[in-house]
Amino acid sequence: MTTIRLKACITAALLLVEIGTNTAQKKDYTQYVDPYIGSAEHGHVFVGANVPSGAVQLGPSQIAQTWDKYNGWDWCSGYNYKSQEILGFTHTHLSGTGIGDLNDILILPATGRHHLSPAPFGKMDQGYGSAISKANETVRPGYYKVLLQDYGILAEMTSSERVGYHRYTFQNKNTPHLLIDLGFQMNWDKATDTYLKLIDDHTLVGYRFSKGWADDQKVYFAIKSSTSLNNIQFYNGNEKVNGYLVAKGTHIKALIDIHADTPVELKVGLSPVSFENALDNIQQEIPNWNFDQAKTNATRKWNEVLGKIDYDADQRSKTIFYTALYHSYFAPTIFNDANGDYMGTDKQVHRQENFENYTFFSLWDTYRGLHPLMTLLEDKKNKDYVKTMLKIYQQQDKLPVWHLWGNETNTMVGLPAIPVIADALLKGFIDKADHELAFEAVKTTAMGYDNGLRFVRELSYIPIDSMDHESVAWALEYAIADFGAYKMAKYLNKEEDAKYFEQRYKLYEKYFDKEVGHFVGRHANGTFRRPFDPLMAKHRENDYCEGNAWQYTWLVPHDVQGLTTLLGGEQKFIAKLDEFIQLPEILDDASPDISGMIGQYAQGNEPNHHVPYLYTYVGQQWKSAELAHKAMTKYYTDAPNGLCGNDDAGQMSAWYVFSSMGIYPANPMDGKYIFGTPLMKSAKIELPNGNTFEIAVKNHEKSNIYIQRVTWNGEPYQKSYITHHHIMGGGKLEFEMGAKPNKKFGQAKDARP
Amino acid sequence: MTTIRLKACITAALLLVEIGTNTAQKKDYTQYVDPYIGSAEHGHVFVGANVPSGAVQLGPSQIAQTWDKYNGWDWCSGYNYKSQEILGFTHTHLSGTGIGDLNDILILPATGRHHLSPAPFGKMDQGYGSAISKANETVRPGYYKVLLQDYGILAEMTSSERVGYHRYTFQNKNTPHLLIDLGFQMNWDKATDTYLKLIDDHTLVGYRFSKGWADDQKVYFAIKSSTSLNNIQFYNGNEKVNGYLVAKGTHIKALIDIHADTPVELKVGLSPVSFENALDNIQQEIPNWNFDQAKTNATRKWNEVLGKIDYDADQRSKTIFYTALYHSYFAPTIFNDANGDYMGTDKQVHRQENFENYTFFSLWDTYRGLHPLMTLLEDKKNKDYVKTMLKIYQQQDKLPVWHLWGNETNTMVGLPAIPVIADALLKGFIDKADHELAFEAVKTTAMGYDNGLRFVRELSYIPIDSMDHESVAWALEYAIADFGAYKMAKYLNKEEDAKYFEQRYKLYEKYFDKEVGHFVGRHANGTFRRPFDPLMAKHRENDYCEGNAWQYTWLVPHDVQGLTTLLGGEQKFIAKLDEFIQLPEILDDASPDISGMIGQYAQGNEPNHHVPYLYTYVGQQWKSAELAHKAMTKYYTDAPNGLCGNDDAGQMSAWYVFSSMGIYPANPMDGKYIFGTPLMKSAKIELPNGNTFEIAVKNHEKSNIYIQRVTWNGEPYQKSYITHHHIMGGGKLEFEMGAKPNKKFGQAKDARP
Repeated sequence: MTTIRLKACITAALLLVEIGTNTAQKKDYTQYVDPYIGSAEHGHVFVGANVPSGAVQLGPSQIAQTWDKYNGWDWCSGYNYKSQEILGFTHTHLSGTGIGDLNDILILPATGRHHLSPAPFGKMDQGYGSAISKANETVRPGYYKVLLQDYGILAEMTSSERVGYHRYTFQNKNTPHLLIDLGFQMNWDKATDTYLKLIDDHTLVGYRFSKGWADDQKVYFAIKSSTSLNNIQFYNGNEKVNGYLVAKGTHIKALIDIHADTPVELKVGLSPVSFENALDNIQQEIPNWNFDQAKTNATRKWNEVLGKIDYDADQRSKTIFYTALYHSYFAPTIFNDANGDYMGTDKQVHRQENFENYTFFSLWDTYRGLHPLMTLLEDKKNKDYVKTMLKIYQQQDKLPVWHLWGNETNTMVGLPAIPVIADALLKGFIDKADHELAFEAVKTTAMGYDNGLRFVRELSYIPIDSMDHESVAWALEYAIADFGAYKMAKYLNKEEDAKYFEQRYKLYEKYFDKEVGHFVGRHANGTFRRPFDPLMAKHRENDYCEGNAWQYTWLVPHDVQGLTTLLGGEQKFIAKLDEFIQLPEILDDASPDISGMIGQYAQGNEPNHHVPYLYTYVGQQWKSAELAHKAMTKYYTDAPNGLCGNDDAGQMSAWYVFSSMGIYPANPMDGKYIFGTPLMKSAKIELPNGNTFEIAVKNHEKSNIYIQRVTWNGEPYQKSYITHHHIMGGGKLEFEMGAKPNKKFGQAKDARP
Repeated sequence: MTTIRLKACITAALLLVEIGTNTAQKKDYTQYVDPYIGSAEHGHVFVGANVPSGAVQLGPSQIAQTWDKYNGWDWCSGYNYKSQEILGFTHTHLSGTGIGDLNDILILPATGRHHLSPAPFGKMDQGYGSAISKANETVRPGYYKVLLQDYGILAEMTSSERVGYHRYTFQNKNTPHLLIDLGFQMNWDKATDTYLKLIDDHTLVGYRFSKGWADDQKVYFAIKSSTSLNNIQFYNGNEKVNGYLVAKGTHIKALIDIHADTPVELKVGLSPVSFENALDNIQQEIPNWNFDQAKTNATRKWNEVLGKIDYDADQRSKTIFYTALYHSYFAPTIFNDANGDYMGTDKQVHRQENFENYTFFSLWDTYRGLHPLMTLLEDKKNKDYVKTMLKIYQQQDKLPVWHLWGNETNTMVGLPAIPVIADALLKGFIDKADHELAFEAVKTTAMGYDNGLRFVRELSYIPIDSMDHESVAWALEYAIADFGAYKMAKYLNKEEDAKYFEQRYKLYEKYFDKEVGHFVGRHANGTFRRPFDPLMAKHRENDYCEGNAWQYTWLVPHDVQGLTTLLGGEQKFIAKLDEFIQLPEILDDASPDISGMIGQYAQGNEPNHHVPYLYTYVGQQWKSAELAHKAMTKYYTDAPNGLCGNDDAGQMSAWYVFSSMGIYPANPMDGKYIFGTPLMKSAKIELPNGNTFEIAVKNHEKSNIYIQRVTWNGEPYQKSYITHHHIMGGGKLEFEMGAKPNKKFGQAKDARP
């Protein structure tokens, strides 16, 4: 009796939770998302079916057109809006990067002739793949649908965190078959060892190991099919592998004849550890055969995160905003199994860890805005990002730089994990038990020797003689990281360390060349580089990284006062900033990463993302509003080319999420969100602690881009920024807007950040 | 009280076990072992410290002299008797192979200058390594000692199954240090990724991944040091890795300055899975710091296996015999962790399996004699060999061919796992629950397509047009394996399969070329290869494998009657066999594997190992005695060059263990041990079922090589062979010997095998 009562009670409770959940999610925010935004030109976003932070990104892989202007670069994610064909559906995709990898485990449903090799561009009849048209393609958060015209197959897909779910409806029933191509590779990626095994007539398992951006990527998988897989032919490359149920080689493929009278469904589980775990992931996440239910679940998961901000604006603005928020949840991605197993950077399988392990840390990008955004929206995710990074530290003896599928790629400059760790500590996302480990990780990482750190250790500048290029970029990023180390040391009462890192975060001063008024590379003998051209932006040749002196001279977000002094005081600072955004938009020989130009300001690349907000530091908040407004409205649209550069694992999007609400964490380590100009009527943020932070806009009009005055919970508010502390307590921030600047707002010294 | 009593009781019980063990092992058989035998010339045996089947083979790696006659081939194990120097001590070594690999995780204690690269031959002052002299080297089963002359260091080592134990006594105390070189590679091996991490001041962990014979070898390790490892410098190749406690790269090395006032001890655990498991292996196997105890344990383990045969003979014969028995226990080697984890051929970590997983299956060699020997001496080992092989089947869809550290190397010809599985089934080493799986594995493997199997499937010969060379060798080995499949099918009452495989095991007949009287390769049109030279033995060019037509014409151990008929009856069979061993010992362009010649009979290579016993099948047992005696006494000595060819993972040695006791399983799948000529006074085999099988020799004299008569448990015994069934029941077989043949013995048709 007791048992039954208890059961009934639990059922009732679950029902209540269910109802509660449904009530909370009555709004469908996914309707505002347009996944095509950023899929044309250089946005490089993933297009397909995933869930927030999902390990699986299931979607099409297209033909990287290596003869186009950018030599295939615009297919870094595997997809570009301009493509009119699909080679197959792969289960992992990067999003917004400038280097291509992944596109693992290609599956293609087909009819007619059995092809083994991908079709060349423009010759779809010469290999596998099909023409598609945008008219027959639908993309929604967690759902992708396309008609494979050449095959007469309607392909749909959805996913959970670790499982991709395919449904193929065959309109044409001529020799229906599936192709699995583990050797399929595009961009930087190259398959090294692949394995496919039929374990029963509905189940295949295997792995695909590859070398690319991730030097040693291991993807294990399991495929559960709704239809029997009796007639299977294995190949290695184009060579038949005979008579076995297992095939191993560098490019294993399988052709499987199937019955297609009813829709064919496949569930594909991924694992970084084993195919046993991949099978378990299917069992844990999508045990049943119900595509529509799985799709509903994916939609629900997206609504859960998109609904964290209730953003009220016109339809177009909502589309841009929610698509940006959607893209902010693509990375980092889950990198473990449902049971907690993951593959470490130390090539060990770590078992049943009690945290969610992540990968796809594009930290040089994301430390600036995406991670701070997550500190407003998420709790456990932030804690798990830190736990993951500390584990990586223990495995490779330095914090991650650019971590991808168990590999340190060491991409980009600086020590970009440190600002994230520092911000997490200061905002309370690190358990007390891990405080010492976190500081040890930061200090050990900062006390390295490579890439100029040996000079920084000694409180010196990095001579250009010691590295081919980018020395100033390394140094400025180090200074930012050192500010994080300083803040952590202060917080943890490590006075000596604080003193040391305070000196280090000031080292940027050593690169300031008074003669030219910029940060300039220095020779070992102390002299600055000559000849000097502040506009020169030659990729991997100058002393900057994807930028020029003009763009890097502002890269002191952690010490704007110090930079102001260095530049000769507020007036000179302002004048130089004004000049910066009025310079001609000329870039010779520059990386395509430098894009979204306003003068020499580049919205399309990260080192400038804080720049609009610098005006606020010197009392001219209205100019921050102007510049942020210009960047938002000129370079973020609802068109497929609506991102002006690589989305960079969501940083470009996170910048917009913040900026369009009128705030931005210009220094991602001081808990201040600087005011810019809100684009919406109101935004309500459901904070992870249960409180609500509302930003309301009075006199919301397109032309009213200037803040006139501000109230906080109804009381006048003079400061030109708001703190994390304020926000987390919940409350209402109201911007009163106008078409003309109120130059007084934020002008007072004590009002500035 | 109860607890204390129980404890006391257990202690007492353990004490009894201990006493029992000691009593049973009062004889020290290790004194008869000379590990140098087979270490000179082409024996290629491992010299160092291991335990029976040990995963760790801890011993020196020397300089493979690639400019010598055999281009470094004689250092396949890492050691050759003629070397006068040691580069360092590595933890894995092949034994008796003709391809080099392993030599993983090099450690070298040193004094004086810190060298990072191995010394070139003859220039020991130009790199790391030291001169040694045989006078200062001691090798005993489970123990190795050498004086590193250049350093003044006495290095000793012993081991358990998964842990190597080093003790270094520094006579010279000038800048004592340790070198760890994970990049060290010799022979076919090439490091691909290495990792070293200091986890506390007495512990290092890491891995070494490499590519060689084993395409993807992963060795994880942990090093526990008795002295602190404070002053450690990491390198990748010769480039310093700065400031970190972790180093990762293709050739990671470490130099560690140490205190050497007292002996420095290192315990090095290996694992195929993780360094956590490697640490656990140390904890499970050698938890304490007591080198002498560890050495005593290793000696005890050797006595346990060597003592299974109490072989009574003169000292020299005992030395040859026990060294052969010692070498019979080098492979297969354990390939899992103390907790049961192992790495599958499917690149998955298999967790806590309840059997001992093995590797180093050199099956083309060992199916002939070594595995049959183990069926007399071991129980669990045989069961676990089968379990391992069935797991490998499930992972790669065919039984292993030549399995090394989780990799199928596909070395040599045929399907040599099948005879082992078949013999194991017939002798009761396969659990009933696995009978069907075992047959499925055998049948699936036999029903393949590659390497000519597509023709065999269709009961046809393999045309030489379909493969470059070795078609006859493949075919004859297939026929042997097919006999195993036939026997299994019969045993399991699978009549249809039995009928099919009976046809297949007869396919050897199709290669018999009556015109020349040999097995000869055939064209697709049915004609035999012309020109034909029965002596031609060009390596990887003729239709045989490491042999010529003369040597391969006898390779029908499973159907000697059929072969006799094919050759024209008993008299022609005998005449041809006589001719075979009287032919000139000429071999042009032949593989060095064809060695140990008696006429064209090659004791040094496996395809002939059953040949001496063929005479017994046709009633001339006395000629078997003669030929076996000649092979044993001419080609097995107690000198370092006492093996006439590669020991081949113990097969050469196992042949001697059997033959010297007067019996040999010429057909390794019919449970018959054919009589040859015993070399000893008596041999008592402790059978795994507790019974004792004794072979006594009456009139034991050097010149009395011919069997006069035989008794079994005192009763006259007419047959020229004994069965497994007889032996396992226990009993005494007595050979009465004489200097002249008793040609009647074994002559009667019903006396023959």
